[in-house]
Amino acid sequence: MSTIIFYDLTSALPEKVWSPNTWKVRYCLNYKALPYKTEWVEFPDIEAHCKKLGIPPTSVEADGTPAYTLPALHDPATGTYIADSLLIAEYLEKTYPTPSIFPHGTAAFQALFDGALRKAALGPLWPFIIPAVHTRLAPASAAYFRTTREPIFGKALEEVTPTGAEGVAQWAAFEAGLDTVDKWYAKSGGPFIMGDTTSWADFIVGSWLIWLRTIWGEGSQQWKDVASWHGGRWAKVLGDLEEYQKVD
Amino acid sequence: MSTIIFYDLTSALPEKVWSPNTWKVRYCLNYKALPYKTEWVEFPDIEAHCKKLGIPPTSVEADGTPAYTLPALHDPATGTYIADSLLIAEYLEKTYPTPSIFPHGTAAFQALFDGALRKAALGPLWPFIIPAVHTRLAPASAAYFRTTREPIFGKALEEVTPTGAEGVAQWAAFEAGLDTVDKWYAKSGGPFIMGDTTSWADFIVGSWLIWLRTIWGEGSQQWKDVASWHGGRWAKVLGDLEEYQKVD
Repeated sequence: MSTIIFYDLTSALPEKVWSPNTWKVRYCLNYKALPYKTEWVEFPDIEAHCKKLGIPPTSVEADGTPAYTLPALHDPATGTYIADSLLIAEYLEKTYPTPSIFPHGTAAFQALFDGALRKAALGPLWPFIIPAVHTRLAPASAAYFRTTREPIFGKALEEVTPTGAEGVAQWAAFEAGLDTVDKWYAKSGGPFIMGDTTSWADFIVGSWLIWLRTIWGEGSQQWKDVASWHGGRWAKVLGDLEEYQKVD
Repeated sequence: MSTIIFYDLTSALPEKVWSPNTWKVRYCLNYKALPYKTEWVEFPDIEAHCKKLGIPPTSVEADGTPAYTLPALHDPATGTYIADSLLIAEYLEKTYPTPSIFPHGTAAFQALFDGALRKAALGPLWPFIIPAVHTRLAPASAAYFRTTREPIFGKALEEVTPTGAEGVAQWAAFEAGLDTVDKWYAKSGGPFIMGDTTSWADFIVGSWLIWLRTIWGEGSQQWKDVASWHGGRWAKVLGDLEEYQKVD
């Protein structure tokens, strides 16, 4: 089997790896035990990088121009160049079906899971995490990140995180949103979204969580809070996925 | 096995049955081949009916008082009185596990599916269907329905359905939302959300669809439109679930 080239976003952190959307694919590569090698890309270089390799855009900007994003990968075994985490997951599942990331006919459920998770739990999170992401990037990516994210909030990144009573309430809203996700685990019996069976849905949860731990830092009050909620559920979810968190 | 008493909403239609939320449970009862008998309830009688039997409320009104809804059922075999479609489904699955409606560890996916479906596709639908529901109810329920639904729209039910260019655009938005659901079926391979395996998710889709066909009528232009979209997907979904659509 030839080595897959995995294009991931870099950072100023020693371990480089940080992006939740690229983590989703990295989990798949590790779970399927596919040989791969990471090539690190800075935010402002993504478009030129994808155009040079013939990796298609994943969406369209507000002005109608194509938008290029990571994760992306090149699989020399099939000559494939592909971007978008779900499309890549579907490609890997089709090309390397064992072990399955969409087991027991759950491809439809797996495809809608990220949207359901975002709607249930992630809404209140963004103003706490996006400004922190900025502090973890190298200068070129940090500048790009500021330019593209500040218009979303309509203010400087340094003014985005709510403080005082508003901050306390919004942090509580984030915890309350995770109640819903905790109940999903309770329904399945855990430790995974499908009970005893690992799947793409776990990699989605695991990617959002590892992002928080990486960006805030394991010793931060924010991560300590999250790790303490729901009987330690979120630290345990990360621990249960640890064998698929290597960076090749 | 003793006969389950199933409390369902009635209507002015000859077949009485119409409600999407009660259909979800009726599909389960039929799929699990559980003997049951329907008792029909008019909207304004639900609260007194539930209080008399000791069926708990399912949510809370805006003013903080308990809200009572159907479906509900009484299972003499266990002495259970229960309401809320998902809670009933979970009760039936636990008490009568075969055939399973949450197969292969999908209890979490099944629980979040209705929310995902509503978000993907049902938003543009409400102004087309809610006024039509009103025309299918007997006078007591119709008056109750008008009183409780008009404040949601802020106008008379007769003024809710968009017309002209706005109506055309919103009808197209409904079709476009169903694109997403059609893609879910394509991912699973169909005919069911889990491919070859029937599950609660199919009963949810089937309940929303049978509601549309019942309320608008099989010969209506609205249903003919829906039945023609996505290669006939929606008429086929109902056909594939036909054996679970009996009314005992």
